[in-house]
Amino acid sequence: MHKVIFDTDPGIDDAMALLFLHRHPEIDLVGVTTVFGNASVDTTTRNALYLAEAWNIDAPVARGADRTIDPARKEGHWPTAIHGHNGIGDVVIPQSISRQADPRPAHQFIIDTVRAHPGEVTLVAVGRMTNLALALQAAPEITKLAKEVVIMGGAFDVPGNVTPAAEANIHGDPEAADIVFTAPWKVTVIGLDVTMKTVMTSGYLAKMVEAGADDVRLLSDISQLYIDFYKSRVGDGMVVHDSCACVYVVRPDLFETRSGSIRVVCGGIADGQTIQKPDGRGFPPSPWDGLPSQIVTTGIDPDGVLEAIRAALVEHRAA
Amino acid sequence: MHKVIFDTDPGIDDAMALLFLHRHPEIDLVGVTTVFGNASVDTTTRNALYLAEAWNIDAPVARGADRTIDPARKEGHWPTAIHGHNGIGDVVIPQSISRQADPRPAHQFIIDTVRAHPGEVTLVAVGRMTNLALALQAAPEITKLAKEVVIMGGAFDVPGNVTPAAEANIHGDPEAADIVFTAPWKVTVIGLDVTMKTVMTSGYLAKMVEAGADDVRLLSDISQLYIDFYKSRVGDGMVVHDSCACVYVVRPDLFETRSGSIRVVCGGIADGQTIQKPDGRGFPPSPWDGLPSQIVTTGIDPDGVLEAIRAALVEHRAA
Ligand SMILES: [Ca+2]
Ligand SMILES: [Ca+2]
Repeated sequence: MHKVIFDTDPGIDDAMALLFLHRHPEIDLVGVTTVFGNASVDTTTRNALYLAEAWNIDAPVARGADRTIDPARKEGHWPTAIHGHNGIGDVVIPQSISRQADPRPAHQFIIDTVRAHPGEVTLVAVGRMTNLALALQAAPEITKLAKEVVIMGGAFDVPGNVTPAAEANIHGDPEAADIVFTAPWKVTVIGLDVTMKTVMTSGYLAKMVEAGADDVRLLSDISQLYIDFYKSRVGDGMVVHDSCACVYVVRPDLFETRSGSIRVVCGGIADGQTIQKPDGRGFPPSPWDGLPSQIVTTGIDPDGVLEAIRAALVEHRAA
Repeated sequence: MHKVIFDTDPGIDDAMALLFLHRHPEIDLVGVTTVFGNASVDTTTRNALYLAEAWNIDAPVARGADRTIDPARKEGHWPTAIHGHNGIGDVVIPQSISRQADPRPAHQFIIDTVRAHPGEVTLVAVGRMTNLALALQAAPEITKLAKEVVIMGGAFDVPGNVTPAAEANIHGDPEAADIVFTAPWKVTVIGLDVTMKTVMTSGYLAKMVEAGADDVRLLSDISQLYIDFYKSRVGDGMVVHDSCACVYVVRPDLFETRSGSIRVVCGGIADGQTIQKPDGRGFPPSPWDGLPSQIVTTGIDPDGVLEAIRAALVEHRAA
């Protein structure tokens, strides 16, 4: 079993990823931590609590950062065209949600949980890296206590999505991401290089609804706005960015990887760009030297990933 | 016939490219302009004059820039491990060379020549972009008078070579390259994305020597140090970076391309990185907006390019 803390900003593709983690028989979801990004942290926390309630997810939900780790950065607009005004496709959400957030801030929840299960917890982060960076600053020893870190973010050999250089999760807090990538723990980065190839068609999703239960129907309802947004970009379907990172935890064999230290550009026109120095390539001295070698995913088996999602959401429903 | 001005820093792969331009039956080499980069501009100019004399190249040679367009930039070391202390593989060069440089600085030579043949001159630049940027600053109207610009430089979907982010020609003068890419003329960029795939083995070169005459032997002698340098990087052979740009002029069909505006990162860890905003991709407002769409080469037929070089150097010897 993989003990997972899911750091997330639901977010539509976040919602699918959450259901996957909850359902997968080899994953023990030990906590959900929220961060601003696809919407304010008020909204993403409310959404996480709502989804936890709707899907009977017992794991605690801890509210996280509402601003970048460098407070001087200015916040942009929420991506309402992609995730809706309420962050989950503008589906109607009940006025009152009985589930309450954990009293601890997300980074403290992460620290406590990793300390409680040394060597066992995988951190899967699919929003801005702010909570992880705050946890590293407050308790640097978690690099030795966490099992591994898997993140969705970045764009290495392909263009970004919020700028030609940068992907949204990293661009949203570049300094935080640079802290996470350069810390001495094992980070695997699932970026646009692979996620943009992993498109779930609306027909595929509809078949899952037929075979599934009400929870997959809710997921489908949430996803329609997102599918509309991606119509002009990938044709029919939704790019399952965040689920790719979750599938990696249990099926790394579905990915091709490249190792090397990673830095994030902070400032200038390439703000938020992720750049890896591939291991084994000779360069003159550079800011990539002496840093831990991390894993970037450069290839993916999209059909295998989609099937892993389908199986978890439909076949393991009764589990 | 393609009238070509060759802006170059010979440089070993520059030497092959020069011989290709001189020999190709559809190219009229109307001038050679030199720039610092693989060595000082004293050295690259001396080398251009030497090669022009050795290979009976009549085109004038004009000496160009000896520093970056932003004089505040600090100069690094010359890449003597790649191109030798004399810039052309440490072959013995005669003490006195009878060929003299054109009295004009390179950028003025470019301006005059483009003005003399409006719409006809292709600028092929395979060193730092300093001379072209100086020409644009002194005579912006050359954007309307030059036929097109083809440059070797940059790394778009692959790592750089002098840093994980940047390729040497662009890294050597990022501000100059940004001026060239954002000017309203047609620029095609032949970067590491394609050149690193285009490796001439030492056996291939040796066969060209057998079939060729003394000039190809000189080229082979010059190239041995470079082949040694690349041994640990590409196995046996030389990456023919600069010749790829020259072949593009006559055989664009051997390349796959992508259009979109290009910016160069100036400063920071990604200094000198080239970033394209692919046409047709939606992004929020960014520094790539409102700029001319330029061509990046994303694919190449390496065997076709090598054969084009071989044919020009060996078969057209008598031409
Ligand atoms: Ca997310
Ligand atoms: Ca060159």
